Amino acid sequence: VSKVITLTTDFGTRDAYVGTMKGVILRIAPEAAIVDLTHEVEKQDITEAALVLKTSHAFFPDGAIHLAVVDPGVGGTRRPIVLRAHRQLFVGPDNGIFSFLVGKGYEAWLLEAKAFRLDIVSDTFHGRDIFAPAAAHLARGTDPSAFGPAVRDLVEVTARQSVELAGAIRGEVVHVDSFGNLITNISREQLATLCGERLPRIEVSGRVLAGLERSYSDVPRGHLVAVIGSIGFLEVAVRDGSAQRKLGVGRGDPIVVRVS
Amino acid sequence: VSKVITLTTDFGTRDAYVGTMKGVILRIAPEAAIVDLTHEVEKQDITEAALVLKTSHAFFPDGAIHLAVVDPGVGGTRRPIVLRAHRQLFVGPDNGIFSFLVGKGYEAWLLEAKAFRLDIVSDTFHGRDIFAPAAAHLARGTDPSAFGPAVRDLVEVTARQSVELAGAIRGEVVHVDSFGNLITNISREQLATLCGERLPRIEVSGRVLAGLERSYSDVPRGHLVAVIGSIGFLEVAVRDGSAQRKLGVGRGDPIVVRVS
Amino acid sequence: VSKVITLTTDFGTRDAYVGTMKGVILRIAPEAAIVDLTHEVEKQDITEAALVLKTSHAFFPDGAIHLAVVDPGVGGTRRPIVLRAHRQLFVGPDNGIFSFLVGKGYEAWLLEAKAFRLDIVSDTFHGRDIFAPAAAHLARGTDPSAFGPAVRDLVEVTARQSVELAGAIRGEVVHVDSFGNLITNISREQLATLCGERLPRIEVSGRVLAGLERSYSDVPRGHLVAVIGSIGFLEVAVRDGSAQRKLGVGRGDPIVVRVS
Repeated sequence: VSKVITLTTDFGTRDAYVGTMKGVILRIAPEAAIVDLTHEVEKQDITEAALVLKTSHAFFPDGAIHLAVVDPGVGGTRRPIVLRAHRQLFVGPDNGIFSFLVGKGYEAWLLEAKAFRLDIVSDTFHGRDIFAPAAAHLARGTDPSAFGPAVRDLVEVTARQSVELAGAIRGEVVHVDSFGNLITNISREQLATLCGERLPRIEVSGRVLAGLERSYSDVPRGHLVAVIGSIGFLEVAVRDGSAQRKLGVGRGDPIVVRVS
Repeated sequence: VSKVITLTTDFGTRDAYVGTMKGVILRIAPEAAIVDLTHEVEKQDITEAALVLKTSHAFFPDGAIHLAVVDPGVGGTRRPIVLRAHRQLFVGPDNGIFSFLVGKGYEAWLLEAKAFRLDIVSDTFHGRDIFAPAAAHLARGTDPSAFGPAVRDLVEVTARQSVELAGAIRGEVVHVDSFGNLITNISREQLATLCGERLPRIEVSGRVLAGLERSYSDVPRGHLVAVIGSIGFLEVAVRDGSAQRKLGVGRGDPIVVRVS
Repeated sequence: VSKVITLTTDFGTRDAYVGTMKGVILRIAPEAAIVDLTHEVEKQDITEAALVLKTSHAFFPDGAIHLAVVDPGVGGTRRPIVLRAHRQLFVGPDNGIFSFLVGKGYEAWLLEAKAFRLDIVSDTFHGRDIFAPAAAHLARGTDPSAFGPAVRDLVEVTARQSVELAGAIRGEVVHVDSFGNLITNISREQLATLCGERLPRIEVSGRVLAGLERSYSDVPRGHLVAVIGSIGFLEVAVRDGSAQRKLGVGRGDPIVVRVS
C-alpha cells in the first residue's frame, strides 16, 4: 500500500468540505500524502468524475488510494464501497463513479464496519464520515476485505462510445479542458486502424481539418490543429487559443473522422 | 503538538501569496503537513473566516495548528496572537477571527518575539512575515508562551444568533455553500426542543417546507428539502440543484421555524 | 537538496493535469513536499509566470526545486532545461520563464537523458512526462549535470522596466492581485533615490496621491493609498476595496512618480 491518497470531488474549494476531509485523514493516517485531482467536477456529474479517474490513476504509484466523492445519492440506498483494480484502491459511492476502471477485473467490498467510520455519521456528508476514514485506514495498511462483505454487480454509467462505420468514425467531445481543447472519445488506435498511412479528415461543427499534427506548435498561432492528446485520444485545439471558443463546440458535440 | 497546519485566508489562489506562506513554513518546519481549509473567504470578511474555523477545527487532530489570515487591519494596531483552545492552537490577528472558539475558555499570547518572525517584517503581509513563521515554530514544539506576554480581552465579532420565540425560532442563512445549500443558525437541539415529536414548519422566502428529511435523496430531484446538515444545523437544499437559485435567497436572509 | 518542489503553471485546477504531475512526482520521490505557487497564470503568459518565480522563490529553503510549466511551444524546438541559481533549482521549458532569476549568474543543463523521463513521452504534455520526473529525480539527489549537456544563451523575456527621468520615475502596473491592488515596477530604492526626505507625488489614471503610507490601515476605509508592498515595490491600493475597480486601471497601465 502507498501513502498517497488522491481526492476527486464536486465540492469546489470555496467551502471547507475538502479541508475537513483532509483533517479526518490526517487524524487517522498522519503520514498520508494527499493529492487533489480536482474538486471542480460539474456538480453531481458522476460520468465526468469517472473520466478523471480513468485518465489519471495510472500516473500514481501501485497501492495508491483514490477517494472519489460525487455523491448525489448520499444518505440513500447506494452502497459505500472500496474497490481494488489496477493494483490500486478506490473508495467512494457505488453509483458508477468507478465504471471505467473495472474492465480488466476487480474486487470490491462494502464499507460497513463501524470501527472504520467516524463515531457519528451524518446523513449528508459521507465523504467526511465514511470515505475519508476508510481511505486513511487503507493507507495505514488495513486490508480492504476488513471493511465488510465482498460486493458484485456494481452500478455502471456508460460514456457514449465512438462508432466505427465504413471508412469513418463517429465520435464526440467528452471533455473541454481549461485551455478550450476539445478532447474526444476517438483513440489513437482507432485512427490508425481507419487511416493506416492515409490522412484523416476531421469534421467538427462544420469545419474540416485535414491531417494530424504532432503538437500544438506545428501550426501558426490562432490556427486549428488536431493532435493525439496526452491521454491518447484525438483532440482538437487552437494554438495559443481556445477551440471551444473558436468553434462554439462543447461537451457532447459530434466529431467525425473520415479517410481523406 | 501535531505536524498539521491548516490555512484559512481571503487571499485566493491566483496570486502566490499562499504559496510563499507555505515556503516560509517549510523552511522552518520541513515536516509540517499543510492543509488548505479555504482561501476564498470573502475579502475582509472576518465573520465568515470565524465560521469556517468553528465548523472545521474539530475534525483535525489534537495539537493541530490553525493559521487564519483575514486581516484588513494589517500594519495597524491590531495584535498578532496565538490562542490555545479545544486542545489546538490558532494563529492570526486579534480582530475577532477566533470569536467562535473561545467560549469554553482559552489562553492567548502576543506574537512579539522577533526570534520567531522573518528577519524583515513588511507592513502589509504579516501572514508571511509573522503568522507563518509562528505556526511553523509551534509545529516544531515551541511553547506558545515563548512568543510574548499573555493577552486577554480579545476582539470579538458576533454572528447574529437565532431567536427562540413562543412556538417558533427566528433564524437566518449564515452561509451558502457552492452547491447552493442554505445553512442556517438554527441547531438540531433547538429544533428538537421546539418540536418534540411534532413536525417543523419551515418558512423561507415565502415558501413553506413541512417536515425534516434525513438526507437530500429523500425527495425527488429538483425538490426543496430541509435537513440537519453535516455540521448540525438546519439546512435548506434542492436535491441535485441549488436552493439559493430556486428561492433567490442568500446569506443574511431570514428563516422561521414553527411547530406544525 | 530540499524535498520541497513548487509548481507554477497555467493549467488551472479544474482539470486533473496538475494532479497527474503530482502523481508522477510521488511515484519517483515519495518524500517530496509539493507546494502550489499558482496554477492560474494567464494562459500562455510566460512573463507573468516569470514574475511569480522572481517574487516567490526567496521564501523557500535552499535547495528547493521550482517546476514551472507555461509552455506554448511544447512539442516544438524549445529546450527542456534545469537551471541552478540562487542556491535553488528550476525546471521547465527554455522559453524565458526563468528570465528574472539569471541576473546573478546561473548554470543550466538540457533535460535529455531518457532515464529521467517517463517511458512514453507525449508531444503535448511535457509537464507530466519530462519536467515532473526531472523535478522528482532532483529531489532524490540526482545532480542536475546528469540530465544532459550544459546549455547557455537561454531565451529571455523582458518585462518593461521603469524609467528614471529628471525628477520623475515613469513605471507601470505589472500585476493586479486578487484584492485589486496595483503592483508596479517602481522599487523602494528608486523611490528613496528620487525623493530623499521629500514626499512622492504619484499619478495614476488621472488621479494624484500625495505621500506614501506604511500600510493599508493608515487611511480610512474606501480611500486610495500608496504603500511599498510586501515584495518591495510601489503598490496602489484601496483600503478594504479594489484599486483596480476604483481607478479602472489594469496591467500595463502607466504610473508616474514625481517629487512633490
